Amino acid sequence: MCQLLGMNCATPTDITFSFRGFSQRAGITSDHSDGFGIAFFEDKACRLFVDNQSAVVSPIAELVRNYPIKSRNVIAHIRKATQGKITLENSHPFIRELWGRQWIFAHNGDLHDFNPRLSGKFIPVGNTDSERSFCFLLDQLVVKFGYQEPRIEDIFQVLEEISPRVAEYGTFNFCLSNGQALFSYATTKLHWIVREYPFKQARLIDIDVEVDFSDVTTPEDRVAVITTEPLTDNEEWTAYQPGEMILFQYGQPIKHALTHVERLVREAKDPTLKRVTRADQY
Amino acid sequence: MCQLLGMNCATPTDITFSFRGFSQRAGITSDHSDGFGIAFFEDKACRLFVDNQSAVVSPIAELVRNYPIKSRNVIAHIRKATQGKITLENSHPFIRELWGRQWIFAHNGDLHDFNPRLSGKFIPVGNTDSERSFCFLLDQLVVKFGYQEPRIEDIFQVLEEISPRVAEYGTFNFCLSNGQALFSYATTKLHWIVREYPFKQARLIDIDVEVDFSDVTTPEDRVAVITTEPLTDNEEWTAYQPGEMILFQYGQPIKHALTHVERLVREAKDPTLKRVTRADQY
Repeated sequence: MCQLLGMNCATPTDITFSFRGFSQRAGITSDHSDGFGIAFFEDKACRLFVDNQSAVVSPIAELVRNYPIKSRNVIAHIRKATQGKITLENSHPFIRELWGRQWIFAHNGDLHDFNPRLSGKFIPVGNTDSERSFCFLLDQLVVKFGYQEPRIEDIFQVLEEISPRVAEYGTFNFCLSNGQALFSYATTKLHWIVREYPFKQARLIDIDVEVDFSDVTTPEDRVAVITTEPLTDNEEWTAYQPGEMILFQYGQPIKHALTHVERLVREAKDPTLKRVTRADQY
Repeated sequence: MCQLLGMNCATPTDITFSFRGFSQRAGITSDHSDGFGIAFFEDKACRLFVDNQSAVVSPIAELVRNYPIKSRNVIAHIRKATQGKITLENSHPFIRELWGRQWIFAHNGDLHDFNPRLSGKFIPVGNTDSERSFCFLLDQLVVKFGYQEPRIEDIFQVLEEISPRVAEYGTFNFCLSNGQALFSYATTKLHWIVREYPFKQARLIDIDVEVDFSDVTTPEDRVAVITTEPLTDNEEWTAYQPGEMILFQYGQPIKHALTHVERLVREAKDPTLKRVTRADQY
Protein backbone atom coordinates (compact mmCIF):
# COMPACT_ATOMS: atom_id res chain seq x y z
CA MET A 1 0.00 0.00 0.00
CA CYS A 2 1.02 3.59 -0.40
CA GLN A 3 0.11 7.04 0.79
CA LEU A 4 -1.20 9.90 -1.30
CA LEU A 5 -0.94 13.66 -0.98
CA GLY A 6 -2.74 16.09 -3.23
CA MET A 7 -3.03 19.86 -3.20
CA ASN A 8 -5.33 22.11 -5.21
CA CYS A 9 -5.11 25.88 -4.74
CA ALA A 10 -6.77 29.13 -5.77
CA THR A 11 -3.35 30.81 -6.14
CA PRO A 12 0.08 29.20 -6.71
CA THR A 13 1.14 27.85 -3.33
CA ASP A 14 4.11 25.86 -2.12
CA ILE A 15 3.61 22.48 -0.48
CA THR A 16 6.74 22.45 1.68
CA PHE A 17 4.79 22.35 5.00
CA SER A 18 2.57 19.41 4.09
CA PHE A 19 5.35 17.55 2.25
CA ARG A 20 7.60 17.90 5.32
CA GLY A 21 5.12 15.93 7.42
CA PHE A 22 4.09 13.56 4.64
CA SER A 23 7.65 12.56 3.74
CA GLN A 24 8.35 11.54 7.36
CA ARG A 25 6.13 8.55 6.66
CA ALA A 26 8.72 7.26 4.20
CA GLY A 27 10.75 5.57 6.92
CA ILE A 28 10.46 7.56 10.15
CA THR A 29 6.82 7.60 11.33
CA SER A 30 5.77 4.89 8.86
CA ASP A 31 7.46 2.46 6.46
CA HIS A 32 6.50 3.79 3.02
CA SER A 33 10.11 3.80 1.89
CA ASP A 34 10.01 2.08 -1.54
CA GLY A 35 10.29 5.23 -3.63
CA PHE A 36 8.49 8.52 -3.80
CA GLY A 37 7.32 11.01 -6.35
CA ILE A 38 5.82 14.45 -6.57
CA ALA A 39 4.42 16.42 -9.50
CA PHE A 40 3.90 20.19 -9.60
CA PHE A 41 1.80 21.75 -12.33
CA GLU A 42 2.56 25.15 -13.75
CA ASP A 43 -0.38 25.83 -16.03
CA LYS A 44 -0.39 22.96 -18.54
CA ALA A 45 3.18 21.82 -17.95
CA CYS A 46 4.45 20.00 -14.93
CA ARG A 47 7.58 19.12 -13.05
CA LEU A 48 7.67 15.51 -12.00
CA PHE A 49 10.26 14.32 -9.49
CA VAL A 50 10.51 10.60 -8.86
CA ASP A 51 13.04 8.52 -7.03
CA ASN A 52 13.24 4.88 -6.06
CA GLN A 53 14.94 5.95 -2.86
CA SER A 54 12.74 6.84 0.12
CA ALA A 55 11.55 10.40 0.59
CA VAL A 56 13.56 10.47 3.85
CA VAL A 57 16.98 9.92 2.25
CA SER A 58 16.48 10.97 -1.39
CA PRO A 59 18.39 14.15 -2.34
CA ILE A 60 15.50 14.89 -4.70
CA ALA A 61 13.02 14.84 -1.79
CA GLU A 62 15.40 17.10 0.14
CA LEU A 63 15.32 19.56 -2.76
CA VAL A 64 11.50 19.48 -2.74
CA ARG A 65 11.40 20.11 1.04
CA ASN A 66 13.70 23.13 0.71
CA TYR A 67 12.82 24.63 -2.68
CA PRO A 68 9.37 26.24 -2.50
CA ILE A 69 7.94 25.44 -5.93
CA LYS A 70 4.60 27.26 -6.26
CA SER A 71 1.81 25.41 -7.99
CA ARG A 72 -1.98 25.22 -8.17
CA ASN A 73 -2.05 21.43 -8.45
CA VAL A 74 0.34 19.03 -6.77
CA ILE A 75 0.23 15.24 -6.40
CA ALA A 76 2.70 13.29 -4.27
CA HIS A 77 3.06 9.63 -3.40
CA ILE A 78 5.19 7.51 -1.10
CA ARG A 79 5.34 3.85 -1.91
CA LYS A 80 5.30 0.64 0.04
CA ALA A 81 5.64 -1.91 -2.71
CA THR A 82 2.98 -4.61 -2.89
CA GLN A 83 2.88 -5.22 -6.66
CA GLY A 84 5.78 -4.46 -8.98
CA LYS A 85 9.49 -4.13 -8.19
CA ILE A 86 11.10 -1.11 -6.53
CA THR A 87 12.21 0.50 -9.75
CA LEU A 88 11.88 3.99 -11.09
CA GLU A 89 9.32 2.93 -13.69
CA ASN A 90 7.01 1.76 -10.88
CA SER A 91 7.26 5.01 -8.93
CA HIS A 92 4.13 7.13 -8.81
CA PRO A 93 2.93 9.63 -9.89
CA PHE A 94 2.66 8.56 -13.51
CA ILE A 95 2.56 11.02 -16.39
CA ARG A 96 0.85 11.00 -19.79
CA GLU A 97 -0.16 13.69 -22.27
CA LEU A 98 -3.74 13.95 -23.43
CA TRP A 99 -5.41 16.83 -25.30
CA GLY A 100 -2.21 18.89 -25.14
CA ARG A 101 -2.05 18.72 -21.34
CA GLN A 102 0.04 16.60 -19.05
CA TRP A 103 -1.97 14.30 -16.78
CA ILE A 104 -0.64 13.07 -13.45
CA PHE A 105 -1.97 10.10 -11.49
CA ALA A 106 -1.12 8.45 -8.18
CA HIS A 107 -2.91 5.47 -6.63
CA ASN A 108 -3.22 3.95 -3.20
CA GLY A 109 -4.50 0.40 -2.93
CA ASP A 110 -4.26 -2.94 -4.63
CA LEU A 111 -6.11 -4.10 -7.73
CA HIS A 112 -6.20 -7.87 -8.29
CA ASP A 113 -6.20 -9.42 -11.76
CA PHE A 114 -6.91 -6.05 -13.31
CA ASN A 115 -5.82 -6.57 -16.90
CA PRO A 116 -8.11 -4.44 -19.02
CA ARG A 117 -7.91 -4.33 -22.80
CA LEU A 118 -5.96 -1.20 -23.75
CA SER A 119 -6.13 0.48 -27.16
CA GLY A 120 -2.38 1.04 -27.37
CA LYS A 121 -2.52 4.80 -27.02
CA PHE A 122 -1.52 4.56 -23.36
CA ILE A 123 0.63 1.59 -22.41
CA PRO A 124 2.15 1.09 -18.95
CA VAL A 125 5.91 1.62 -18.80
CA GLY A 126 6.23 -0.33 -15.56
CA ASN A 127 4.32 -3.32 -14.26
CA THR A 128 2.05 -1.97 -11.52
CA ASP A 129 -1.71 -2.36 -11.27
CA SER A 130 -1.73 1.40 -10.62
CA GLU A 131 -0.22 2.47 -13.93
CA ARG A 132 -2.53 0.02 -15.72
CA SER A 133 -5.54 1.68 -14.10
CA PHE A 134 -4.24 5.13 -15.14
CA CYS A 135 -3.81 4.01 -18.75
CA PHE A 136 -7.30 2.47 -18.62
CA LEU A 137 -8.89 5.71 -17.33
CA LEU A 138 -7.23 7.81 -20.06
CA ASP A 139 -8.09 5.24 -22.70
CA GLN A 140 -11.74 5.39 -21.67
CA LEU A 141 -11.68 9.19 -21.82
CA VAL A 142 -10.45 8.95 -25.42
CA VAL A 143 -13.13 6.34 -26.21
CA LYS A 144 -15.72 8.81 -24.93
CA PHE A 145 -14.39 12.12 -26.22
CA GLY A 146 -11.89 11.29 -28.98
CA TYR A 147 -9.18 13.89 -29.42
CA GLN A 148 -11.50 16.84 -28.73
CA GLU A 149 -10.90 18.18 -25.24
CA PRO A 150 -14.12 18.14 -23.18
CA ARG A 151 -15.14 20.30 -20.23
CA ILE A 152 -13.83 19.38 -16.77
CA GLU A 153 -17.38 18.54 -15.63
CA ASP A 154 -17.79 16.07 -18.50
CA ILE A 155 -14.49 14.40 -17.62
CA PHE A 156 -15.72 14.10 -14.03
CA GLN A 157 -18.88 12.39 -15.21
CA VAL A 158 -16.95 9.77 -17.18
CA LEU A 159 -14.50 9.15 -14.33
CA GLU A 160 -17.48 8.75 -12.03
CA GLU A 161 -18.80 6.00 -14.30
CA ILE A 162 -15.49 4.21 -14.84
CA SER A 163 -13.85 4.38 -11.41
CA PRO A 164 -16.25 2.04 -9.59
CA ARG A 165 -15.74 -0.50 -12.40
CA VAL A 166 -12.01 -0.46 -11.65
CA ALA A 167 -12.78 -0.57 -7.91
CA GLU A 168 -14.44 -3.94 -8.43
CA TYR A 169 -10.90 -5.32 -8.64
CA GLY A 170 -9.79 -4.07 -5.23
CA THR A 171 -8.91 -0.84 -3.47
CA PHE A 172 -8.92 2.24 -5.61
CA ASN A 173 -7.99 5.51 -3.95
CA PHE A 174 -6.48 8.01 -6.37
CA CYS A 175 -5.56 11.59 -7.17
CA LEU A 176 -5.57 12.69 -10.82
CA SER A 177 -4.88 16.12 -12.27
CA ASN A 178 -4.44 17.78 -15.63
CA GLY A 179 -3.29 21.08 -14.12
CA GLN A 180 -6.76 22.62 -14.34
CA ALA A 181 -8.37 20.69 -11.51
CA LEU A 182 -7.77 17.73 -9.21
CA PHE A 183 -9.98 14.64 -9.37
CA SER A 184 -9.93 12.42 -6.29
CA TYR A 185 -11.60 9.12 -5.52
CA ALA A 186 -11.61 6.82 -2.52
CA THR A 187 -13.01 3.39 -1.95
CA THR A 188 -11.39 2.96 1.47
CA LYS A 189 -9.28 5.82 2.76
CA LEU A 190 -8.69 9.45 1.86
CA HIS A 191 -9.17 12.70 3.79
CA TRP A 192 -9.48 16.31 2.75
CA ILE A 193 -9.40 19.77 4.23
CA VAL A 194 -9.72 23.31 2.90
CA ARG A 195 -7.58 26.05 4.42
CA GLU A 196 -8.93 29.52 3.73
CA TYR A 197 -9.36 32.96 5.28
CA PRO A 198 -9.29 33.43 8.26
CA PHE A 199 -6.24 31.16 8.35
CA LYS A 200 -5.22 29.45 11.57
CA GLN A 201 -2.34 27.52 13.06
CA ALA A 202 -1.59 23.99 11.91
CA ARG A 203 0.59 21.45 13.71
CA LEU A 204 2.04 18.45 11.88
CA ILE A 205 1.51 15.00 13.39
CA ASP A 206 4.65 13.37 11.97
CA ILE A 207 7.26 15.95 12.95
CA ASP A 208 7.36 18.72 15.52
CA VAL A 209 6.57 21.57 13.12
CA GLU A 210 3.88 24.19 13.46
CA VAL A 211 2.93 27.02 11.14
CA ASP A 212 0.58 29.96 11.52
CA PHE A 213 -0.90 30.20 8.03
CA SER A 214 -2.22 33.71 8.79
CA ASP A 215 1.44 34.87 8.74
CA VAL A 216 2.15 33.51 5.27
CA THR A 217 -1.10 33.93 3.34
CA THR A 218 -3.33 36.58 1.84
CA PRO A 219 -7.16 36.57 1.96
CA GLU A 220 -7.21 35.44 -1.69
CA ASP A 221 -5.41 32.19 -0.86
CA ARG A 222 -7.39 29.00 -0.53
CA VAL A 223 -5.85 25.57 -0.44
CA ALA A 224 -7.43 22.12 -0.49
CA VAL A 225 -5.22 19.29 0.79
CA ILE A 226 -6.08 15.65 0.14
CA THR A 227 -4.20 12.88 1.93
CA THR A 228 -4.47 9.24 2.95
CA GLU A 229 -4.09 10.01 6.65
CA PRO A 230 -4.55 13.49 8.16
CA LEU A 231 -1.30 15.44 8.37
CA THR A 232 -2.17 17.73 11.29
CA ASP A 233 -3.73 17.10 14.70
CA ASN A 234 -5.39 20.47 15.30
CA GLU A 235 -7.46 20.80 12.13
CA GLU A 236 -10.68 19.08 11.08
CA TRP A 237 -10.11 16.66 8.22
CA THR A 238 -13.10 15.12 6.44
CA ALA A 239 -12.94 11.42 5.58
CA TYR A 240 -14.13 10.36 2.12
CA GLN A 241 -17.10 8.04 2.16
CA PRO A 242 -16.51 4.71 0.40
CA GLY A 243 -16.96 5.37 -3.32
CA GLU A 244 -16.79 9.15 -3.00
CA MET A 245 -15.37 11.19 -5.86
CA ILE A 246 -14.54 14.86 -5.35
CA LEU A 247 -13.43 17.39 -7.94
CA PHE A 248 -11.31 20.23 -6.56
CA GLN A 249 -10.77 23.49 -8.38
CA TYR A 250 -9.68 26.92 -7.09
CA GLY A 251 -8.82 25.34 -3.75
CA GLN A 252 -12.25 23.95 -2.97
CA PRO A 253 -14.49 21.00 -3.78
CA ILE A 254 -16.71 21.98 -6.71
CA LYS A 255 -18.35 18.63 -7.48
CA HIS A 256 -19.09 15.47 -5.45
CA ALA A 257 -20.43 12.10 -6.41
CA LEU A 258 -21.01 8.97 -4.42
CA THR A 259 -20.42 5.89 -6.54
CA HIS A 260 -21.90 2.81 -5.00
CA VAL A 261 -18.76 0.73 -4.77
CA GLU A 262 -20.08 -1.77 -2.27
CA ARG A 263 -23.23 -2.31 -4.27
CA LEU A 264 -21.15 -2.69 -7.40
CA VAL A 265 -18.94 -5.29 -5.80
CA ARG A 266 -21.98 -7.18 -4.51
CA GLU A 267 -23.58 -7.01 -7.94
CA ALA A 268 -20.38 -8.13 -9.63
CA LYS A 269 -20.59 -11.28 -7.55
CA ASP A 270 -24.28 -11.75 -8.38
CA PRO A 271 -24.83 -10.87 -12.04
CA THR A 272 -28.59 -11.19 -11.66
CA LEU A 273 -28.52 -7.90 -9.79
CA LYS A 274 -28.72 -4.78 -11.92
CA ARG A 275 -25.29 -3.23 -12.54
CA VAL A 276 -24.93 0.41 -11.57
CA THR A 277 -22.54 2.15 -13.85
CA ARG A 278 -23.81 5.68 -13.42
CA ALA A 279 -23.40 7.03 -9.91
CA ASP A 280 -25.96 9.09 -8.08
CA GLN A 281 -25.11 12.70 -7.51
CA TYR A 282 -25.54 14.34 -4.17
CA MET B 1 18.74 28.91 -30.50
CA CYS B 2 19.69 26.40 -27.90
CA GLN B 3 22.38 23.93 -27.04
CA LEU B 4 22.07 20.17 -26.80
CA LEU B 5 23.87 17.56 -24.77
CA GLY B 6 23.33 13.84 -25.17
CA MET B 7 25.03 10.85 -23.61
CA ASN B 8 24.73 7.17 -24.51
CA CYS B 9 26.68 4.60 -22.51
CA ALA B 10 27.53 0.91 -22.39
CA THR B 11 27.14 0.90 -18.60
CA PRO B 12 25.19 3.31 -16.37
CA THR B 13 27.34 6.41 -16.10
CA ASP B 14 26.89 9.79 -14.46
CA ILE B 15 27.01 12.96 -16.52
CA THR B 16 28.20 15.36 -13.82
CA PHE B 17 31.51 16.20 -15.60
CA SER B 18 29.95 17.06 -18.95
CA PHE B 19 26.94 18.80 -17.39
CA ARG B 20 29.26 20.95 -15.28
CA GLY B 21 30.84 22.40 -18.42
CA PHE B 22 27.62 22.46 -20.44
CA SER B 23 25.62 24.31 -17.79
CA GLN B 24 28.21 27.13 -17.70
CA ARG B 25 26.81 28.13 -21.07
CA ALA B 26 23.53 29.05 -19.41
CA GLY B 27 24.72 32.52 -18.47
CA ILE B 28 28.48 32.42 -17.80
CA THR B 29 30.36 31.40 -20.97
CA SER B 30 27.27 31.86 -23.16
CA ASP B 31 23.75 33.30 -22.83
CA HIS B 32 21.52 30.22 -23.01
CA SER B 33 19.72 31.21 -19.84
CA ASP B 34 16.02 30.83 -20.71
CA GLY B 35 15.45 27.53 -18.96
CA PHE B 36 17.10 24.16 -18.95
CA GLY B 37 16.17 20.54 -18.75
CA ILE B 38 17.77 17.14 -18.42
CA ALA B 39 16.35 13.63 -18.68
CA PHE B 40 17.96 10.46 -17.32
CA PHE B 41 16.71 7.07 -18.40
CA GLU B 42 16.73 4.10 -16.09
CA ASP B 43 15.68 1.24 -18.32
CA LYS B 44 12.28 2.22 -19.71
CA ALA B 45 11.51 4.90 -17.13
CA CYS B 46 13.09 8.28 -16.92
CA ARG B 47 13.66 11.17 -14.60
CA LEU B 48 13.03 14.51 -16.25
CA PHE B 49 14.15 17.71 -14.56
CA VAL B 50 13.07 20.98 -16.15
CA ASP B 51 13.24 24.54 -14.94
CA ASN B 52 12.49 27.88 -16.52
CA GLN B 53 15.38 29.31 -14.53
CA SER B 54 18.86 29.13 -16.06
CA ALA B 55 21.06 26.11 -15.37
CA VAL B 56 23.48 28.50 -13.62
CA VAL B 57 21.07 29.61 -10.87
CA SER B 58 18.45 26.84 -10.78
CA PRO B 59 18.53 24.75 -7.58
CA ILE B 60 17.42 21.81 -9.73
CA ALA B 61 20.52 22.19 -11.94
CA GLU B 62 22.62 22.42 -8.79
CA LEU B 63 21.15 19.09 -7.66
CA VAL B 64 22.01 17.53 -11.03
CA ARG B 65 25.59 18.82 -10.86
CA ASN B 66 26.07 17.32 -7.39
CA TYR B 67 23.94 14.15 -7.42
CA PRO B 68 25.55 11.54 -9.66
CA ILE B 69 22.52 9.91 -11.28
CA LYS B 70 23.75 6.95 -13.33
CA SER B 71 22.08 6.35 -16.65
CA ARG B 72 22.69 4.79 -20.07
CA ASN B 73 20.86 7.54 -21.94
CA VAL B 74 20.77 11.21 -21.02
CA ILE B 75 19.52 14.24 -22.95
CA ALA B 76 20.00 17.81 -21.72
CA HIS B 77 19.14 21.19 -23.17
CA ILE B 78 19.79 24.82 -22.33
CA ARG B 79 17.48 27.30 -23.97
CA LYS B 80 17.85 30.69 -25.54
CA ALA B 81 14.28 31.50 -26.46
CA THR B 82 13.57 32.34 -30.10
CA GLN B 83 10.05 30.95 -30.44
CA GLY B 84 7.65 30.50 -27.51
CA LYS B 85 7.64 32.21 -24.13
CA ILE B 86 10.04 31.37 -21.27
CA THR B 87 7.64 29.05 -19.50
CA LEU B 88 8.03 25.58 -18.10
CA GLU B 89 5.87 24.06 -20.85
CA ASN B 90 8.36 25.33 -23.45
CA SER B 91 11.40 23.87 -21.67
CA HIS B 92 13.12 20.95 -23.41
CA PRO B 93 13.49 18.02 -23.23
CA PHE B 94 9.90 16.99 -23.96
CA ILE B 95 8.43 13.69 -22.86
CA ARG B 96 5.83 11.33 -24.35
CA GLU B 97 5.03 7.65 -23.92
CA LEU B 98 4.92 5.35 -26.95
CA TRP B 99 4.89 1.53 -27.02
CA GLY B 100 5.19 1.41 -23.22
CA ARG B 101 8.41 3.44 -23.17
CA GLN B 102 9.04 7.06 -22.37
CA TRP B 103 10.51 9.05 -25.25
CA ILE B 104 12.60 12.15 -24.70
CA PHE B 105 13.37 14.82 -27.30
CA ALA B 106 15.39 18.03 -27.39
CA HIS B 107 15.90 20.30 -30.39
CA ASN B 108 18.33 22.98 -31.41
CA GLY B 109 17.35 25.27 -34.26
CA ASP B 110 14.38 27.15 -35.65
CA LEU B 111 11.60 25.78 -37.80
CA HIS B 112 9.55 28.34 -39.66
CA ASP B 113 5.83 27.89 -40.39
CA PHE B 114 6.06 24.25 -39.39
CA ASN B 115 2.44 23.40 -38.66
CA PRO B 116 1.99 19.76 -39.63
CA ARG B 117 -1.32 17.98 -39.37
CA LEU B 118 -1.28 15.92 -36.16
CA SER B 119 -3.50 12.92 -35.48
CA GLY B 120 -4.29 13.99 -31.92
CA LYS B 121 -2.36 11.19 -30.25
CA PHE B 122 0.52 13.56 -29.49
CA ILE B 123 -0.41 17.20 -29.03
CA PRO B 124 2.07 19.89 -27.97
CA VAL B 125 1.59 21.15 -24.41
CA GLY B 126 3.54 24.35 -25.09
CA ASN B 127 3.84 26.47 -28.22
CA THR B 128 7.33 25.78 -29.59
CA ASP B 129 8.24 24.59 -33.08
CA SER B 130 10.41 22.01 -31.28
CA GLU B 131 7.61 20.24 -29.42
CA ARG B 132 5.51 20.29 -32.61
CA SER B 133 8.31 18.51 -34.46
CA PHE B 134 8.59 15.92 -31.66
CA CYS B 135 4.83 15.23 -31.81
CA PHE B 136 5.09 14.98 -35.59
CA LEU B 137 7.94 12.44 -35.46
CA LEU B 138 6.07 10.23 -32.98
CA ASP B 139 2.85 10.57 -34.94
CA GLN B 140 4.65 9.41 -38.07
CA LEU B 141 6.11 6.43 -36.19
CA VAL B 142 2.56 5.40 -35.21
CA VAL B 143 1.37 5.90 -38.81
CA LYS B 144 4.13 3.55 -39.90
CA PHE B 145 4.10 0.92 -37.15
CA GLY B 146 0.78 1.29 -35.34
CA TYR B 147 0.87 0.24 -31.70
CA GLN B 148 3.25 -2.68 -32.31
CA GLU B 149 6.75 -1.78 -31.17
CA PRO B 150 9.26 -2.13 -34.03
CA ARG B 151 12.99 -2.79 -33.89
CA ILE B 152 15.35 0.11 -33.22
CA GLU B 153 16.78 -0.18 -36.74
CA ASP B 154 13.30 0.15 -38.26
CA ILE B 155 12.63 3.25 -36.19
CA PHE B 156 15.94 4.68 -37.44
CA GLN B 157 14.88 4.10 -41.01
CA VAL B 158 11.60 5.98 -40.56
CA LEU B 159 13.31 8.86 -38.74
CA GLU B 160 15.82 9.01 -41.56
CA GLU B 161 12.96 9.45 -44.03
CA ILE B 162 10.99 11.99 -41.98
CA SER B 163 13.70 14.20 -40.48
CA PRO B 164 14.84 15.84 -43.72
CA ARG B 165 11.19 16.66 -44.48
CA VAL B 166 11.03 18.58 -41.19
CA ALA B 167 14.43 20.14 -41.94
CA GLU B 168 12.94 21.76 -45.01
CA TYR B 169 11.37 24.23 -42.57
CA GLY B 170 14.64 25.39 -41.03
CA THR B 171 17.37 24.13 -38.71
CA PHE B 172 16.78 20.71 -37.22
CA ASN B 173 19.42 19.39 -34.86
CA PHE B 174 18.00 16.96 -32.30
CA CYS B 175 18.60 14.21 -29.77
CA LEU B 176 15.87 11.62 -29.22
CA SER B 177 15.89 8.59 -26.95
CA ASN B 178 13.54 5.88 -25.74
CA GLY B 179 16.00 4.57 -23.16
CA GLN B 180 17.25 1.80 -25.48
CA ALA B 181 19.29 3.96 -27.83
CA LEU B 182 19.92 7.58 -28.73
CA PHE B 183 18.96 8.94 -32.16
CA SER B 184 20.72 12.14 -33.20
CA TYR B 185 20.38 14.31 -36.26
CA ALA B 186 22.04 17.53 -37.40
CA THR B 187 21.40 19.85 -40.28
CA THR B 188 23.85 22.52 -39.10
CA LYS B 189 25.72 21.84 -35.87
CA LEU B 190 26.34 18.86 -33.60
CA HIS B 191 29.53 17.09 -32.47
CA TRP B 192 30.20 13.68 -30.99
CA ILE B 193 32.94 11.77 -29.27
CA VAL B 194 33.35 8.28 -27.84
CA ARG B 195 35.34 7.81 -24.65
CA GLU B 196 36.53 4.25 -24.16
CA TYR B 197 39.44 2.18 -22.89
CA PRO B 198 42.26 3.26 -22.67
CA PHE B 199 40.67 6.32 -21.07
CA LYS B 200 42.51 9.63 -21.00
CA GLN B 201 42.37 13.04 -19.42
CA ALA B 202 39.72 15.52 -20.45
CA ARG B 203 39.70 19.27 -19.76
CA LEU B 204 36.51 21.30 -19.94
CA ILE B 205 36.49 24.45 -22.06
CA ASP B 206 33.86 26.37 -20.10
CA ILE B 207 35.21 25.96 -16.57
CA ASP B 208 38.62 25.12 -15.17
CA VAL B 209 37.91 21.45 -14.47
CA GLU B 210 39.91 18.45 -15.58
CA VAL B 211 39.30 14.76 -15.04
CA ASP B 212 41.39 11.68 -15.68
CA PHE B 213 38.77 9.17 -16.84
CA SER B 214 41.22 6.31 -16.32
CA ASP B 215 40.83 6.95 -12.56
CA VAL B 216 37.05 6.64 -12.56
CA THR B 217 36.28 4.00 -15.20
CA THR B 218 36.59 0.29 -15.86
CA PRO B 219 37.56 -1.26 -19.23
CA GLU B 220 33.87 -2.16 -19.78
CA ASP B 221 32.83 1.49 -19.76
CA ARG B 222 32.22 3.26 -23.03
CA VAL B 223 30.49 6.61 -23.35
CA ALA B 224 29.35 8.55 -26.39
CA VAL B 225 28.78 12.26 -25.82
CA ILE B 226 26.86 14.38 -28.32
CA THR B 227 26.83 18.15 -28.01
CA THR B 228 26.23 21.32 -30.01
CA GLU B 229 29.75 22.68 -29.34
CA PRO B 230 32.64 20.53 -28.07
CA LEU B 231 32.92 20.52 -24.28
CA THR B 232 36.65 19.79 -23.98
CA ASP B 233 39.73 21.25 -25.66
CA ASN B 234 42.06 18.23 -25.49
CA GLU B 235 39.87 15.58 -27.14
CA GLU B 236 38.96 15.04 -30.77
CA TRP B 237 35.30 15.76 -31.44
CA THR B 238 33.74 14.83 -34.77
CA ALA B 239 31.40 17.32 -36.41
CA TYR B 240 28.17 15.98 -37.94
CA GLN B 241 27.90 16.51 -41.65
CA PRO B 242 24.82 18.46 -42.73
CA GLY B 243 21.95 15.99 -42.79
CA GLU B 244 23.79 13.31 -40.83
CA MET B 245 21.81 10.98 -38.58
CA ILE B 246 23.63 8.76 -36.08
CA LEU B 247 22.17 6.05 -33.88
CA PHE B 248 24.10 5.43 -30.65
CA GLN B 249 23.77 2.28 -28.61
CA TYR B 250 26.10 0.71 -26.01
CA GLY B 251 28.19 3.91 -26.03
CA GLN B 252 29.04 3.90 -29.72
CA PRO B 253 27.59 4.82 -33.11
CA ILE B 254 25.92 1.73 -34.56
CA LYS B 255 24.22 3.24 -37.60
CA HIS B 256 24.82 6.29 -39.77
CA ALA B 257 22.86 7.87 -42.57
CA LEU B 258 23.40 10.99 -44.58
CA THR B 259 20.12 12.59 -45.54
CA HIS B 260 20.49 15.09 -48.31
CA VAL B 261 19.14 18.13 -46.57
CA GLU B 262 20.64 20.69 -48.88
CA ARG B 263 19.39 18.86 -51.91
CA LEU B 264 15.98 18.55 -50.28
CA VAL B 265 15.85 22.26 -49.57
CA ARG B 266 16.92 23.04 -53.12
CA GLU B 267 14.36 20.63 -54.48
CA ALA B 268 11.68 22.07 -52.24
CA LYS B 269 12.30 25.42 -53.93
CA ASP B 270 12.23 23.81 -57.38
CA PRO B 271 9.46 21.20 -57.47
CA THR B 272 10.52 20.04 -60.93
CA LEU B 273 13.53 18.38 -59.26
CA LYS B 274 12.94 14.89 -57.95
CA ARG B 275 12.22 14.81 -54.19
CA VAL B 276 14.50 12.59 -52.15
CA THR B 277 12.66 11.19 -49.18
CA ARG B 278 14.78 8.11 -48.59
CA ALA B 279 18.33 8.88 -47.55
CA ASP B 280 21.39 7.10 -48.83
CA GLN B 281 23.18 4.89 -46.38
CA TYR B 282 26.90 5.02 -45.92
